[in-house]
Amino acid sequence: MNAYQSLCEAASEIALLTSTEAVLGWDQETYMPEKALEHRARQLSYLTGKAHELLTSKKTLKLLERAEATMPEDATQAANVRGLRRDIHRATKLPKKLVEEESEVCALGKAAWVEARAKSDFATFAPHLDKILGIARKKADLFGYEDEPYDALLDLYERNAKTREVAALFEKLKPQLADIAREAAAKSKKVKPGALKGRYPIEKQKILNREIAESLGYDFGAGRIDTTAHPFCTTLGPGDVRLTTRYDESDFLSSLFGVMHEAGHGLYEQGLPGLDYGLPSGSAASLGIHESQSRLWENHVGRSHFFWAKWLPRAAELFPHLRKVKMDAFMKEVKRSEFSFIRVEADEATYDLHILLRFGIERRLVKGELAVKNVPEVWNAEYHELFGMTPPDDAQGCLQDIHWSMGGLGYFATYTLGNLNAAQLFATANKQRKIAAGVEKCDYAPLLQWLRQKVHAHGAALTPQEIMTYATGKPTDAKWHIKHLRERYVD
Amino acid sequence: MNAYQSLCEAASEIALLTSTEAVLGWDQETYMPEKALEHRARQLSYLTGKAHELLTSKKTLKLLERAEATMPEDATQAANVRGLRRDIHRATKLPKKLVEEESEVCALGKAAWVEARAKSDFATFAPHLDKILGIARKKADLFGYEDEPYDALLDLYERNAKTREVAALFEKLKPQLADIAREAAAKSKKVKPGALKGRYPIEKQKILNREIAESLGYDFGAGRIDTTAHPFCTTLGPGDVRLTTRYDESDFLSSLFGVMHEAGHGLYEQGLPGLDYGLPSGSAASLGIHESQSRLWENHVGRSHFFWAKWLPRAAELFPHLRKVKMDAFMKEVKRSEFSFIRVEADEATYDLHILLRFGIERRLVKGELAVKNVPEVWNAEYHELFGMTPPDDAQGCLQDIHWSMGGLGYFATYTLGNLNAAQLFATANKQRKIAAGVEKCDYAPLLQWLRQKVHAHGAALTPQEIMTYATGKPTDAKWHIKHLRERYVD
Repeated sequence: MNAYQSLCEAASEIALLTSTEAVLGWDQETYMPEKALEHRARQLSYLTGKAHELLTSKKTLKLLERAEATMPEDATQAANVRGLRRDIHRATKLPKKLVEEESEVCALGKAAWVEARAKSDFATFAPHLDKILGIARKKADLFGYEDEPYDALLDLYERNAKTREVAALFEKLKPQLADIAREAAAKSKKVKPGALKGRYPIEKQKILNREIAESLGYDFGAGRIDTTAHPFCTTLGPGDVRLTTRYDESDFLSSLFGVMHEAGHGLYEQGLPGLDYGLPSGSAASLGIHESQSRLWENHVGRSHFFWAKWLPRAAELFPHLRKVKMDAFMKEVKRSEFSFIRVEADEATYDLHILLRFGIERRLVKGELAVKNVPEVWNAEYHELFGMTPPDDAQGCLQDIHWSMGGLGYFATYTLGNLNAAQLFATANKQRKIAAGVEKCDYAPLLQWLRQKVHAHGAALTPQEIMTYATGKPTDAKWHIKHLRERYVD
Repeated sequence: MNAYQSLCEAASEIALLTSTEAVLGWDQETYMPEKALEHRARQLSYLTGKAHELLTSKKTLKLLERAEATMPEDATQAANVRGLRRDIHRATKLPKKLVEEESEVCALGKAAWVEARAKSDFATFAPHLDKILGIARKKADLFGYEDEPYDALLDLYERNAKTREVAALFEKLKPQLADIAREAAAKSKKVKPGALKGRYPIEKQKILNREIAESLGYDFGAGRIDTTAHPFCTTLGPGDVRLTTRYDESDFLSSLFGVMHEAGHGLYEQGLPGLDYGLPSGSAASLGIHESQSRLWENHVGRSHFFWAKWLPRAAELFPHLRKVKMDAFMKEVKRSEFSFIRVEADEATYDLHILLRFGIERRLVKGELAVKNVPEVWNAEYHELFGMTPPDDAQGCLQDIHWSMGGLGYFATYTLGNLNAAQLFATANKQRKIAAGVEKCDYAPLLQWLRQKVHAHGAALTPQEIMTYATGKPTDAKWHIKHLRERYVD
């Protein structure tokens, strides 16, 4: 075995532990009985500890150094060595004490956030957010950054992204997005609600969701769909990528778009090179690339006229009261848009504005330009500037998201980066006649093949922007997303 | 931390690994997609290896020796030290090469058995059985035994049981069981079949099964019921004991008795001292004790007149065609008995005869008194002696069970020991008026409390026969089982 192979073997061993954690985590969210919680937490923390031990062991470091000394000529192999160096160094740079402190601060922070949100009382959460920010800044210092500490945090979710560039991108987007949101909401106001009113039995929703997920190319031989409080997609190993959704008996679109979104993540994970499982080249490139896949299938495919031309008749077979709903009226419901206080309930036309707000606040918090105690005031003022209304309380304002309480600073931006990438990838793919023709008749094999080749096949062997450039000829550009939103919601 | 506590901590760490294996195993049988199999096998073999490494490490051995040097005065703690010594020494005595050889031989053996059974061709399986026996004998030699090698194998499943004693017990049972089986089958022949014919929708079977499992005391806050090809009960940690069953739309009793059987196992596991999880005192005493719990709830409770006096009306609510079935006719179906070739399809009145046959053949195989090639001939002759008929082929004869192909020699006897223990425990418990009164009106809290105190609470801190003696005043005695069968199937 050469040095590179030995390093890969160590990475595989770590992946056995982390994929086992994924099984335990999936079970915890889906089927685990409540009294199992305490032992499950012990199992998970044991496995996390063992994986961290292995990743930061002297043996692994030596293997890395040997592999670096005889750097492979193959580009993917070289990318794997560099990627593992990044992972190992990142894990090594954090002293055990800080990792433990973070885990404790976030556990308490999450509990305080739950309470604060329930009471809509920011003061309950504020001291915890202060501590969480302190740890985030320490981490940023340890990881290092060029311009500002937020760079180091952003890089955890979106490799090589620069805060300044993202900020400039978002700044340019803001007025255009605000225009679109306003016009979309005004249009929807004219559409009388209730066209889809009726009961949608869960068993029938499951049938439709499965047929549609299959039609996108999601492989049920290597996956499944279960029910959870919050939808997610998780990879338990190569050949095992599972989705979840939740059901509302009065609204079949909610579980369906949930499934299409998670199936988009799932198609990406199923398309990663399985033989490289546990290596950077077998792992997702970034959250912004991941989210591009979920948004592409959910929004560009799932909310399109082409899609429903095929699937509305099928839905009407399962839900007979839909038979009287005309395609035109149905599509108006699919595209219904309105201003809302809650991000996770926001529609496609307004969603990014919620992200822009969070990104700006987070950046200033990390920089120290904004004091924690002033977050509610700034949030409400900036929300008002975007939407012309003020959240009635902090539960519907700055306390609505779980991310900060879990230390997930730097995460939000990737949602909008995902939207931008999705539009750009979808538009580029559709320049090929075969793909566009497939999309028109809901045959997604050509589109999926293109995504597999242009995006999925590289894993994280390329950076997110290298992938965008390889696939579309250009790094992330907002124009496609704006064009798409205008066409769908304004013109 | 004193020496005993340090030893317990090592045992806890091992239990984190083995309980994680249990989660992976449960998932594999219930929900895992097919393409996940290869990676799952890798995860499991990794965890098994790590657990074995820990159990046999120098560090653990040192902790054991330190704990033995300052042997705790507390009886349970002392039993834990002795129990861990047994586990550690057993694991240490097997050289890694033999463990690997066994795992390989059994993997091939199992595949050959599947093929042999499908073709009903013993010759395909014979050379594998030869190898499996060779390994079993090597293991017996390494573990050591007093009288004969089979002792060492039996002890793996039924601690301290002696082959000679079990053989004597079984020999005495044989003519009595044969009598009962004959009379039971003759009686059932007079009962026209088809009284319960009808469709039993699976969703309604699930409702009934859950209500009944709950009524026995099975805690769904620390468990659940799923669907698998073969029913089982598995413990994933303290507070997490899960059951499975399978459904037949034309027969609700099949899934129900399956659930009651597995719930019996589950009640035992839920009743083990959770704080001692991972220690002998927090683990089941033996398979013969385990099976006593499943058989007690399935047969003594579940097939009784008292039970159906309450539950037949409820079943008739869920399955309306049962409304016209009278209690008397229903009970005749519950007690229907007939000679069958297949053990797993055998009823209560004939089951043990299948076990006696296997025990005798196994013992002679291990001793070397019976050559593998002669197994079909001997099986068929002895089967004929017991049941007066001859299996039409080996698939319905000596090839029907998976146990030998997996190296599970010494296992079969525990099924009948379980039946004997069940009858003895149930009869003893019912001497208490409160318990008997509860059983009569299907209130099982007093019975469960008695089992918790007399059986469950000790885990493996007592030997199986110590438990039987503590609970009933005497070691396992066949008379209760014979009495029970006579009352139910003959008188």
